[in-house]
Amino acid sequence: MRGEFDFINSLKSKLKPDSSLTGIGDDAAVINQNSELQTVVSQDLLIEDIDFRRAWLPLNRLGRALGHKALAVSLSDIAAMGATPRYCLTSIGLPETVWRTAFIDEFYDSLLALARQHNTQLIGGDTSRSPDRIVIDCTVIGEIKRGRAVLRSTAKVGDLVFVSGELGDAATGLELLENGKRLSTGRTANPSLLTMDALIKRQLTPTPRVELGCHLAQHNLATSMIDISDGLAADLHHLCNASNTGALIDESRLPIAHAIHQLKTTRPPADLALYGGEDYELLFTVAPADKHKIPAHFDDESLTEIGIITEASEGITIKTGERSRPLKAKGFVHF
Amino acid sequence: MRGEFDFINSLKSKLKPDSSLTGIGDDAAVINQNSELQTVVSQDLLIEDIDFRRAWLPLNRLGRALGHKALAVSLSDIAAMGATPRYCLTSIGLPETVWRTAFIDEFYDSLLALARQHNTQLIGGDTSRSPDRIVIDCTVIGEIKRGRAVLRSTAKVGDLVFVSGELGDAATGLELLENGKRLSTGRTANPSLLTMDALIKRQLTPTPRVELGCHLAQHNLATSMIDISDGLAADLHHLCNASNTGALIDESRLPIAHAIHQLKTTRPPADLALYGGEDYELLFTVAPADKHKIPAHFDDESLTEIGIITEASEGITIKTGERSRPLKAKGFVHF
Repeated sequence: MRGEFDFINSLKSKLKPDSSLTGIGDDAAVINQNSELQTVVSQDLLIEDIDFRRAWLPLNRLGRALGHKALAVSLSDIAAMGATPRYCLTSIGLPETVWRTAFIDEFYDSLLALARQHNTQLIGGDTSRSPDRIVIDCTVIGEIKRGRAVLRSTAKVGDLVFVSGELGDAATGLELLENGKRLSTGRTANPSLLTMDALIKRQLTPTPRVELGCHLAQHNLATSMIDISDGLAADLHHLCNASNTGALIDESRLPIAHAIHQLKTTRPPADLALYGGEDYELLFTVAPADKHKIPAHFDDESLTEIGIITEASEGITIKTGERSRPLKAKGFVHF
Repeated sequence: MRGEFDFINSLKSKLKPDSSLTGIGDDAAVINQNSELQTVVSQDLLIEDIDFRRAWLPLNRLGRALGHKALAVSLSDIAAMGATPRYCLTSIGLPETVWRTAFIDEFYDSLLALARQHNTQLIGGDTSRSPDRIVIDCTVIGEIKRGRAVLRSTAKVGDLVFVSGELGDAATGLELLENGKRLSTGRTANPSLLTMDALIKRQLTPTPRVELGCHLAQHNLATSMIDISDGLAADLHHLCNASNTGALIDESRLPIAHAIHQLKTTRPPADLALYGGEDYELLFTVAPADKHKIPAHFDDESLTEIGIITEASEGITIKTGERSRPLKAKGFVHF
């Protein structure tokens, strides 16, 4: 099977973007809007049994979770460009059995709640029946001052690599769900159950780092940026490949989610952080001269320096103590 | 099962659009872009076994047909606002068995060919695996001079009702496909097979009336407009309900596709034209004073006056000779 990325690369070669357009193959496309602003657009597809399973939650709560997640993943793309989200459109295909439930109301209530939080208006979309699986496609349209969009292709050798928040919790939440664990009823005080709930929630309802992305772009602090959807390792590869650079990551600095250490996961915690995916944190690079302008925390989330951009010839490597090894591009693989 | 339209109406009541926004619930949403232009956005979902069947065509030709149709139906929405399409994004979910074929290349080649024809650039989207069915969601972004977008809600009593092209052929093509008929190999001279081919092609690869929509908007000729996706009857109901009017249609004036008369269809030709759906022609209203400005043909397609907008209290009716009856809102029902 030809991979999605191979295909996108082959497709890019067929496109002849004009000068009004940047960002094809980036987190979002950037279009000139007027002399001061650019429009940024991203679109993301969620398909049942690829991106989520119906068995994870009762239908109404699944509707609530998916309304949040469908918008969150596209908001995250807009955040990764440093843009401000403004509008969204949502297409949804539902089996008849799901149409008859509270799913769709919960879906839109939840989507609209997240949209309001980011001053984003739902302006359209499509609804359809689907033979058996739930399908959701969400488009977010944002805007940014002309020339300020942060691409993934503009990292420079010597730039420092930063990541927001903690990594690996969404992947651990996914592992829990796939192993049959479910959200508790919310009345538990059992610390282990509470930890599992937190991890599962990070998988079901990720938080897009919209304010952080805007802050970094507005203050010209990020030289390049991408959101972590496929996993730190895979998305670092995307960034380095687009920028034609290498990178050296320090494993000891990885902000591995604390909750992971409290559970017996089948994969090593560092693997979950590197290859886990769906963190929807921001991975960005900063010129050394601007390092002091990056706070240790932003909106309660840590901003952690994890490595440095190197020459492409040095490859993308990760060091553990004195030893370094190539950091493989393997990332989050959907079911 | 609650209908899609009921749901959209209930959703509309939850939205609080600000003054920068019109057209929610119309063919496309309209956003202020700058002091001179507005952005128009539409998004449409196509799902296998709801909107098309894999058995209709060999996979590569299906890819070609769907690449065209996915873009065409969204372009048709943009056309129905009178806007000029500029950009598109396409999300596509494919089963692994389809990824391995020429489907995806054919899909994008065909989509890009139609996009080029309308000076529209593909700027993004998403690709994903799907468990078993093909899913496509296409967004088109267009633009129009501020205040010129033609809504479906602005028809006035006394306006004349026009429709472009011929009606019912796409629905007849669908009926042929559902009855097991397929496109011929193209080497036939049999008139009956050629007629069936033409009807099937109208179902598979509809032509969005982009230039006509722009023309009507630029010259301020259409007082309201909608594209015919659900069928003339259903879409006339949408237009009249949005405009708070009734309408009187003259059945003898309906531009029923000639090809239908050449076949023995299971439904009466007028029914296929009224309730068939997927014609992607434009239904628009014209002030009586502007009637002389509407040519008999535009781009080789006929423009036919089929009725008049009436008071809402008179309902939506159709007359056959001296008798008139209510025109039911029943429209194209997907499989």
